[in-house]
Amino acid sequence: MQSNMKTPLLSSTPSDPSDSSAPPLSLSGPVVGIIGSGDFSRSLSIRLLSCGFRVVVGSRDPAGVGRGLFPEGVELRSQREAVEAAERLVFAAIYPEHYHTLLGLRDGLTGKVLVDVSNAKSLRGGGRQSNAERLAELFPMSSVVKGFNTVSAWALQVGAHDGSRQVLICSDCSASKASVLQLSRHLGFSPVDLGGLCASRDIEEAPLLLFPSWGGPMLTTFLLFLFFYAYNFMRHVLLPYLDKGENNFYQLPLVTVNETLPSVALVTLALVYLPGVFAAVLQLVRGTKYRRFPLWMDRWLCSRKQLGLLSFLCAVLHAVYSMCLTLRRAAGYTLLNAAYRQMKAGVENSWVEKQVWRSDLYLSSGILGFGVLALLAITSLPSVGNALTWREFTFVQSGLGYVALTLSVTHTLFFGWDFAFYPSSYPYFLPPVFLLSLVLPCVVLVGRILLALPCLTFRLTKIRRGWESRRHRPTHNPEPSVEVDPPQNFGDV
Amino acid sequence: MQSNMKTPLLSSTPSDPSDSSAPPLSLSGPVVGIIGSGDFSRSLSIRLLSCGFRVVVGSRDPAGVGRGLFPEGVELRSQREAVEAAERLVFAAIYPEHYHTLLGLRDGLTGKVLVDVSNAKSLRGGGRQSNAERLAELFPMSSVVKGFNTVSAWALQVGAHDGSRQVLICSDCSASKASVLQLSRHLGFSPVDLGGLCASRDIEEAPLLLFPSWGGPMLTTFLLFLFFYAYNFMRHVLLPYLDKGENNFYQLPLVTVNETLPSVALVTLALVYLPGVFAAVLQLVRGTKYRRFPLWMDRWLCSRKQLGLLSFLCAVLHAVYSMCLTLRRAAGYTLLNAAYRQMKAGVENSWVEKQVWRSDLYLSSGILGFGVLALLAITSLPSVGNALTWREFTFVQSGLGYVALTLSVTHTLFFGWDFAFYPSSYPYFLPPVFLLSLVLPCVVLVGRILLALPCLTFRLTKIRRGWESRRHRPTHNPEPSVEVDPPQNFGDV
Amino acid sequence: MQSNMKTPLLSSTPSDPSDSSAPPLSLSGPVVGIIGSGDFSRSLSIRLLSCGFRVVVGSRDPAGVGRGLFPEGVELRSQREAVEAAERLVFAAIYPEHYHTLLGLRDGLTGKVLVDVSNAKSLRGGGRQSNAERLAELFPMSSVVKGFNTVSAWALQVGAHDGSRQVLICSDCSASKASVLQLSRHLGFSPVDLGGLCASRDIEEAPLLLFPSWGGPMLTTFLLFLFFYAYNFMRHVLLPYLDKGENNFYQLPLVTVNETLPSVALVTLALVYLPGVFAAVLQLVRGTKYRRFPLWMDRWLCSRKQLGLLSFLCAVLHAVYSMCLTLRRAAGYTLLNAAYRQMKAGVENSWVEKQVWRSDLYLSSGILGFGVLALLAITSLPSVGNALTWREFTFVQSGLGYVALTLSVTHTLFFGWDFAFYPSSYPYFLPPVFLLSLVLPCVVLVGRILLALPCLTFRLTKIRRGWESRRHRPTHNPEPSVEVDPPQNFGDV
Repeated sequence: MQSNMKTPLLSSTPSDPSDSSAPPLSLSGPVVGIIGSGDFSRSLSIRLLSCGFRVVVGSRDPAGVGRGLFPEGVELRSQREAVEAAERLVFAAIYPEHYHTLLGLRDGLTGKVLVDVSNAKSLRGGGRQSNAERLAELFPMSSVVKGFNTVSAWALQVGAHDGSRQVLICSDCSASKASVLQLSRHLGFSPVDLGGLCASRDIEEAPLLLFPSWGGPMLTTFLLFLFFYAYNFMRHVLLPYLDKGENNFYQLPLVTVNETLPSVALVTLALVYLPGVFAAVLQLVRGTKYRRFPLWMDRWLCSRKQLGLLSFLCAVLHAVYSMCLTLRRAAGYTLLNAAYRQMKAGVENSWVEKQVWRSDLYLSSGILGFGVLALLAITSLPSVGNALTWREFTFVQSGLGYVALTLSVTHTLFFGWDFAFYPSSYPYFLPPVFLLSLVLPCVVLVGRILLALPCLTFRLTKIRRGWESRRHRPTHNPEPSVEVDPPQNFGDV
Repeated sequence: MQSNMKTPLLSSTPSDPSDSSAPPLSLSGPVVGIIGSGDFSRSLSIRLLSCGFRVVVGSRDPAGVGRGLFPEGVELRSQREAVEAAERLVFAAIYPEHYHTLLGLRDGLTGKVLVDVSNAKSLRGGGRQSNAERLAELFPMSSVVKGFNTVSAWALQVGAHDGSRQVLICSDCSASKASVLQLSRHLGFSPVDLGGLCASRDIEEAPLLLFPSWGGPMLTTFLLFLFFYAYNFMRHVLLPYLDKGENNFYQLPLVTVNETLPSVALVTLALVYLPGVFAAVLQLVRGTKYRRFPLWMDRWLCSRKQLGLLSFLCAVLHAVYSMCLTLRRAAGYTLLNAAYRQMKAGVENSWVEKQVWRSDLYLSSGILGFGVLALLAITSLPSVGNALTWREFTFVQSGLGYVALTLSVTHTLFFGWDFAFYPSSYPYFLPPVFLLSLVLPCVVLVGRILLALPCLTFRLTKIRRGWESRRHRPTHNPEPSVEVDPPQNFGDV
Repeated sequence: MQSNMKTPLLSSTPSDPSDSSAPPLSLSGPVVGIIGSGDFSRSLSIRLLSCGFRVVVGSRDPAGVGRGLFPEGVELRSQREAVEAAERLVFAAIYPEHYHTLLGLRDGLTGKVLVDVSNAKSLRGGGRQSNAERLAELFPMSSVVKGFNTVSAWALQVGAHDGSRQVLICSDCSASKASVLQLSRHLGFSPVDLGGLCASRDIEEAPLLLFPSWGGPMLTTFLLFLFFYAYNFMRHVLLPYLDKGENNFYQLPLVTVNETLPSVALVTLALVYLPGVFAAVLQLVRGTKYRRFPLWMDRWLCSRKQLGLLSFLCAVLHAVYSMCLTLRRAAGYTLLNAAYRQMKAGVENSWVEKQVWRSDLYLSSGILGFGVLALLAITSLPSVGNALTWREFTFVQSGLGYVALTLSVTHTLFFGWDFAFYPSSYPYFLPPVFLLSLVLPCVVLVGRILLALPCLTFRLTKIRRGWESRRHRPTHNPEPSVEVDPPQNFGDV
């Protein structure tokens, strides 16, 4: 029971066989050291304390630190004493510029885990050394672990109740990393292991970035929106105004936006499935899956989820805008004026069977396509996707994805009906916008159908199971591999 | 520090007190062995390596394996050497047909954990021995753990960023299983412990199955849809056409679908709550909760969540279809023709107070019922449901569920208004579809109200707290049980 | 291998280096004791058994307990034998009133972990001792851990497949708590560590509470709804009826509700951001962030997420109601009568450009505001929020939150257009409801703009990084703190 006190206490927390008879004292937790007495140090010490750890804060001038700033139970000592008191973990909560001032503590820190919690000052762009790497250089006999810098001091202090529970962690020493992973789980966070210490370059820059994986897809979607909006503006508003003096400017806030959104949604959805078709073609041509794709294609493949969700967002907005169309004053006026004209003309029944079928068919296929897209979006939620097996996930994201794309194309085709063949649909020689937006989706669908030809499917499946055409195989491989499902890397949004 | 090297290293990864002073070397991780050099082996070794493990791949012909296929850092050896180098875990990544070829490695594998990653060739239907069970028979001195077969080689290699992080694991040895659970967590997956090795029969077949728990509910919903669609088609389209030559075929793509969907949603919702009522009645009649329900009822009880979500899906589609009704050309033509007729007839005010109330009331109750159903669907998301206490979850799923059912019935009743009593509502002696769809929901609501009678509630609560009527109680049980809330097993979608 | 049997077995389950050579026996798991043979005991033993633990149930009269009630593999013994057989964990599954009957087992329980699973009988309101605290008093030499009381016996037995996986745990001994945390994770639950044993007062009352954090926000929203509904009823229905005999009662179920909902949504959204503005002002005035806010403000700050979600719910209902407006019979009649009047008056074109712009603009801004609110709601899902870094979460919840508020205010202003300046908009001297609902949002927006003035922002940022104005700083703090992002505690819904 007493011998317990001599063993490292942090590791004893989760599941140590040796402390099975630990006395029921609230202060029996492991001792964690923190160098620095600033804001982060305070918040961290409050949190550690409330989770049952003992905390020793090391300051260059412990007497000068306001005692009231730290909660009761935190010991304020010199830096050296804090480092020596710490049983395994020491947090370096000072500015990275001052890391060299810790060199005197080298001996005390030997064999201990030094946690670097600093942020990058600015985006360095990969090449430069990170703060954590510099710290590891200064203290070669300690294990440096990067982590906790993405957490705010406030979230640390009060507990991460809503969101942002994520702590990015990396280290070259897997045992030390495991301790910090465990600690962060214990403090109520969700640690994510990012591998070796070189990952600290990204981790330090993480707080400077906002949704880094969303930048490209959002820009793409925005440019598509701009293009289609400008095209619609010119075709329906500007040219009729210049040409015939028609005042259609009232369409700008809602009608033109609602004409633009479905085109953007459709093209973006095609962009989700295009790189998968490219990848399959490339693998077929190369005869192997063991050569890397070009960088731009790797990036594109990694942006598919974001593109898919942005496509869904545009589809949602299009649906809501459309359902609000009849709420508009303009819709009411148009109907009233039509009633007036019908009356004047003495037409008893204005029913046009063809138009009725057209509108019902494009609404139907649109609603169904939207429903399938919504299922895709729901399985993109982390907790839902995580509950699926890999085959189910692929089925939803690839299989249902192509169903959604096909339904969207059908929706557009029914909407366009036979207008594409009327000369009146080409005012100022500009084709209708739905024709433009159909180009890419049709390319994808045709590509997919070609790839589904038995001969190509057979070869592709072989390649994806690890087979390589002769010219790429370095030597003969006599060992049969376990039959794994083909790692189909196209079509999962 | 050096003694560390002698202890098994995998177990040291997460939280081993003994390696508190592990040297900060990136290659200090535990050694994992993989038998087989196929595609799965490559992907797994890449992943293990990047997570800080050391990997030894054993091949029957190590010289023949293309060195370039495996990343630097992976050691390629003979199978015997790989097994001996592995400190605790050995993956068997070869075809199950070749398991007998490993018999020569028995001695080396003694005391080690052998992980079977193979899939079933076809659905065997329970009775037959699984690959993992056969492996365990061949190696009685090793602990066989089943796992990782549901993961794709591709997801293994690049990391499971989006969805499908789930790894199903089972074993008869809980300590070995714990090691593999830990390993898979370490590799970034979400392991699910499915118990003893007999579960491997299901696990091996899992990759062959798509949403196994959804089959029955989806078939039920689809059959209901077919029935109601056919009924509506006959009543509103086919018979009027045959009888009077009315051409209502334009209703097929949208109007008939939208008449069918609410019936399906309502009946499916009733099917969610019906088995709970049955179960309560059965418990009341039997006087105990300790006898199993018949198998079909167990299955039905387990399908309630799926049925509830499918009911919600139908309700969503019904809502969207309904909101698109006024967008249809047909709606415009109908209104214009009505305006023409009103004008001709000289009716200044066509307002019918009764119809106004009817439409506003059924829309209101429909929207509210839909809103409550949406809350139920949201708490069915794993991450939301997981954050609720059990009582909150029951309150939402059972309490709010009945509110949704009641509101849906109200919606239908207001929609039907007093039409049920007009002879004109029974063309060709076919009752309106809303009457048909009300049967089951009304049975459920009446059953629930009867069960809420004080005498029955009292007895049911007692039974659910563990009380048994005399004829079922085997012996007298003098011990008071802890007061737990009644495990109410009806009404949670 | 055999020595394994002597070490505590629970701790060996997850990751014990010492059992690396554990024999592949299914019954090698740790032994857990349960005192009491009631319903909870049965369910718990079934669960433990199926997860590879060995279970000894202790009863006062083991011979009298029905053997058939417990599954095969559970050992039924006397209480003393069960306590002695347990290697580390003993569950006290009897009524808290009978805790004193266990006093004779004190010696056997010394050094063991005693888990209290009881519920409170009624809400005690904080002051009184909890069952777990009383148990700890009775057994000072055992570590008492509170937990598992929020789980239903049913969920225990069959596994928590859907939702309610949460187990609240607390203890004064962190090592014992860690063991129970580990155990509950092993049984498939999501344990939440709530700190010291004093938290057991809340944990025991948790099963009596329903959504405790939602009470205040829901009451607020409900009262706002009542007020605005009554106001609309008086202004549009009651007074016109009393005054001119107009019969507008048909508006009550839908139209009046839909006039009320947007006001409630807007004011509730303002209430989300108001306390943040207050907090910033208070920090500016006080010159420090290290003084606690008043209790009512702390509570308000903690209710922001709930208020935000309720605001979103009202906005969703408003959107759905609005989109159903044209489906109403009343809308059809109104249009037909308008067509009749237009015909009679001989107006060929009833188009009013101003009204067209107004309706399109308020629909547009409404849809966009609604879209942004939906993004906020999605990031409030635990699994989504958890995947964001802290800065991303703040950007969405604070940044996009203000965008949503601004768009909602714009929506309301366009809706109101210039009506506010017509005398006819003030019947019975009652201002239009949209004016009332704009007061609070405008206060918040003005406050936020003032706080964004450079001088105030600079000071506030300094304060939030830990700086304190001279009068509050107890002593000089020479240590530079790590640069953490400002813990912005307003604006995150």
